[in-house]
Amino acid sequence: MIVLRSPKGWTGPKEVDGQKVEGTWRSHQVPMGEMQSPEHLKILESWMKSYRPEELFDNSGALVKELQSLAPKGNRRMGANPHANGGLLRRDLRMPDFRTYAVSVEKPGVVVAEATRVAGELLRDVMRLNMESKNFRVFGPDETQSNRLGALFEVTDRTWLADTLPDDLQLSPNGRVMEILSEHCCEGWLEGYLLTGRHGLFNSYEAFIHIVDSMFNQHAKWLKTTTKEIPWRAPIASLNYLLSSHVWRQDHNGFSHQDPGFIDLASNKKADIIRIYLPPDANTLLSVTDHCLRSRNFINIIVAGKQPALQYLDMDDAIKHCTAGVGIWEWASNDKGGEPDVVMACAGDVPTLETLAAVHLLRRMVPELKIRVINVVDLMTLQPAEEHPHGLSAKDFDALFTKDKPIIFAYHGYPWLIHRLTYRRTNHNNLHVRGYKEEGTTTTPFDMVVRNDMDRFHLVMDVFSRVPKIGYHAAYAKQGMRDKLIEHKEYITTYGDDLPEIREWRWTDL
Amino acid sequence: MIVLRSPKGWTGPKEVDGQKVEGTWRSHQVPMGEMQSPEHLKILESWMKSYRPEELFDNSGALVKELQSLAPKGNRRMGANPHANGGLLRRDLRMPDFRTYAVSVEKPGVVVAEATRVAGELLRDVMRLNMESKNFRVFGPDETQSNRLGALFEVTDRTWLADTLPDDLQLSPNGRVMEILSEHCCEGWLEGYLLTGRHGLFNSYEAFIHIVDSMFNQHAKWLKTTTKEIPWRAPIASLNYLLSSHVWRQDHNGFSHQDPGFIDLASNKKADIIRIYLPPDANTLLSVTDHCLRSRNFINIIVAGKQPALQYLDMDDAIKHCTAGVGIWEWASNDKGGEPDVVMACAGDVPTLETLAAVHLLRRMVPELKIRVINVVDLMTLQPAEEHPHGLSAKDFDALFTKDKPIIFAYHGYPWLIHRLTYRRTNHNNLHVRGYKEEGTTTTPFDMVVRNDMDRFHLVMDVFSRVPKIGYHAAYAKQGMRDKLIEHKEYITTYGDDLPEIREWRWTDL
Repeated sequence: MIVLRSPKGWTGPKEVDGQKVEGTWRSHQVPMGEMQSPEHLKILESWMKSYRPEELFDNSGALVKELQSLAPKGNRRMGANPHANGGLLRRDLRMPDFRTYAVSVEKPGVVVAEATRVAGELLRDVMRLNMESKNFRVFGPDETQSNRLGALFEVTDRTWLADTLPDDLQLSPNGRVMEILSEHCCEGWLEGYLLTGRHGLFNSYEAFIHIVDSMFNQHAKWLKTTTKEIPWRAPIASLNYLLSSHVWRQDHNGFSHQDPGFIDLASNKKADIIRIYLPPDANTLLSVTDHCLRSRNFINIIVAGKQPALQYLDMDDAIKHCTAGVGIWEWASNDKGGEPDVVMACAGDVPTLETLAAVHLLRRMVPELKIRVINVVDLMTLQPAEEHPHGLSAKDFDALFTKDKPIIFAYHGYPWLIHRLTYRRTNHNNLHVRGYKEEGTTTTPFDMVVRNDMDRFHLVMDVFSRVPKIGYHAAYAKQGMRDKLIEHKEYITTYGDDLPEIREWRWTDL
Repeated sequence: MIVLRSPKGWTGPKEVDGQKVEGTWRSHQVPMGEMQSPEHLKILESWMKSYRPEELFDNSGALVKELQSLAPKGNRRMGANPHANGGLLRRDLRMPDFRTYAVSVEKPGVVVAEATRVAGELLRDVMRLNMESKNFRVFGPDETQSNRLGALFEVTDRTWLADTLPDDLQLSPNGRVMEILSEHCCEGWLEGYLLTGRHGLFNSYEAFIHIVDSMFNQHAKWLKTTTKEIPWRAPIASLNYLLSSHVWRQDHNGFSHQDPGFIDLASNKKADIIRIYLPPDANTLLSVTDHCLRSRNFINIIVAGKQPALQYLDMDDAIKHCTAGVGIWEWASNDKGGEPDVVMACAGDVPTLETLAAVHLLRRMVPELKIRVINVVDLMTLQPAEEHPHGLSAKDFDALFTKDKPIIFAYHGYPWLIHRLTYRRTNHNNLHVRGYKEEGTTTTPFDMVVRNDMDRFHLVMDVFSRVPKIGYHAAYAKQGMRDKLIEHKEYITTYGDDLPEIREWRWTDL
């Protein structure tokens, strides 16, 4: 590294209109304007001539031979240096078979697991397999353990170069987990690591990833420009975010920790480079994480909970579901062979739980109601195919979501994003989205969804309001749901925990 | 101020399961879990008892008199201290009459002015009038001059407490312009200033305000909670952002400086506290700025250009237009007394220019085409009245935008936001939005709009594609527009500047 210290504005005109420019703040403004004035033109000329161009160029305007020969050749040229084109140095990660970490799911909605803890085991072995090639690191603001990726510490430590105290654990100069309570540092480190040909993953609390919004924007712009406009740039590993400790499970932290809007920010960037995944359980998270770590030149955003939660898909189904990105969950639906009365869609782990619980209630209350349950893992499938490479074709979208049936969509983030992604779809006018609408506090997990009208009881009421066929059930049924919500409020006020029927809810055969 | 230095986790259990907690990193995790274990319960009990509650509380559980008398009274209580409830200390600003700064606009679309420079004169006099009460400051990351608010320096300096050099200007310890090239510092300073009862304005380059996204989020959450849920909190001055040097005029800086997405972030927060203004010229900016500085408990985002630009409204019209937030520009429209064939809507200074130039072209090419021109200053008027207090009623929206005519909407930011705000509106299916879609580089001002398909020629083609009535004109007319765009590309490649007919375009009577 060469460090050059020079006066601010060095090599510009030293003085303009009697005012010092070089070495002052003026050189950071427009150093000289009004170029139509003959005096300014003269300053420009004498400054340009101070380089003595007659010594640098020959009569045809070409650089003189002597100087030409000074320029470095081949890979020593600044733009050709492979360290400035990290994709050239990139070696693919050695990847374990992600299927071996699968949670066993014999029946959907019964087994409980912590999705990110399972993903942590996959990451541990990615780390182990690439320890020798030293090209994989995990970054995070002091939350690797809290986001339940602690398995990593079975094979490596946190990077730590300073003194250690007797009670310190898992710190070492060779550690490959980069932890610092500064999202800015993590993002900067990871970007530099990727740009020089290595691989990584940034895990963060969902709400606080907004801290790096501006850095994310610049990386997205860099990727857009280099992938679309600069063919000689070799592909680099994707920028992978694993956002956990998400909006719906901030039971201890409250409103300040609830913000699912990073997805919205990302959706404004060029579709070619943005991928957003909302795996509903551990096996889908495994499949998505494997896919993201193998991908190139993308920004992958994965949002997944860390709390104990129901598991829905076995590994085979998870792979199929994640590969398609969106699909009908046949085991939860009862419209096969006919047309549905209502489509219940969901994206995200907590919305999936509430949707399934609502479907379960509905199927017991109104067995003749035909319900189609759709889960969305890959959010970009919702966009038209012309807008995003993962977007469903109009035909496929209409086949899944129907052309005219009510759709009740429970979504992880701000509900408007779903409208934004689907406003061109045939059935958009029948789409009703529930999501986070900035109603939060320190409360129980179920109360969080209740406060945002995304709980099972609200979803049931939404169906009753929108499916004409069941009009005669509606009055009593809605009152029943309303009473449930009152019971919920009373219970949590008394016990500080959710109703047992909520906490212990499981999917059962119908 | 009292600074207390204590061991990390002080006052918690010192040790759990033989591991040190107090004074170690463990106290920042969950210090003790598994509370059902009798051993842990015992640790909890002995820790709690270490406070000797029998000395602190009487038999009824009340704090003993002796300790009760130690607590401060009245305003000395932490929560009652007026400095922690700054609204109580707030004194309204002394405001000059903003109308006196008006740019004279005798005919629309002819006079040229720099909007933020004019607003700078208003801010200068707000500063002057409140110099004695010391309760107004302007904050910005080294861009006050660049954003053309330099008039402020006629009455005050930049705050500067360190040494000065002979070439330094406008620095003093009493200066009331807070400049530092850290958006984080500016935001933090301003938030603290408002929370303690003062007033201010943050000016920033539009793209870089994303740096404080996360801080903005927390202030928005704080406002939502205090204004809706904590009645004893006295209203504080609004958090005012003036975003200039915006996406469309980054001629020198290029792609890295182009990002209009802060508006999208803000739109996710509670409607009660968010206000977004896109004044199209100087007089509307004056009216909006005056309004924002007088408001309470809001976050006001004003986006306005700093470059020389056409002026459209005289002060009387500007006040009427800003008060309504949205309206028909009658002088540009020709549908009065009948029904329009197309609605040309715009929000933001550059989109307004392109829309008017497109309308001018159309009215000459197809005089029988009935065009309604609508300008939107207050973006939140587009939302349904149920969603935002400024939202137009369904009836008013339908009256303005029609129930069935094509709407071509040129918008300052990412086009999807307009869809998000209007998807419930009757005529949404006929709404076609042009805006910034991440196509940018270092180029001419007009080429920026061309790259994003928001230029006058694209807008004309959009009308030809969507208004059936003028079908027979379409083929020739579209070809004419296409040729214009080719001419533009050739011209800027040769001259590095926009075509004279673009640079010098003015609105003329038709």
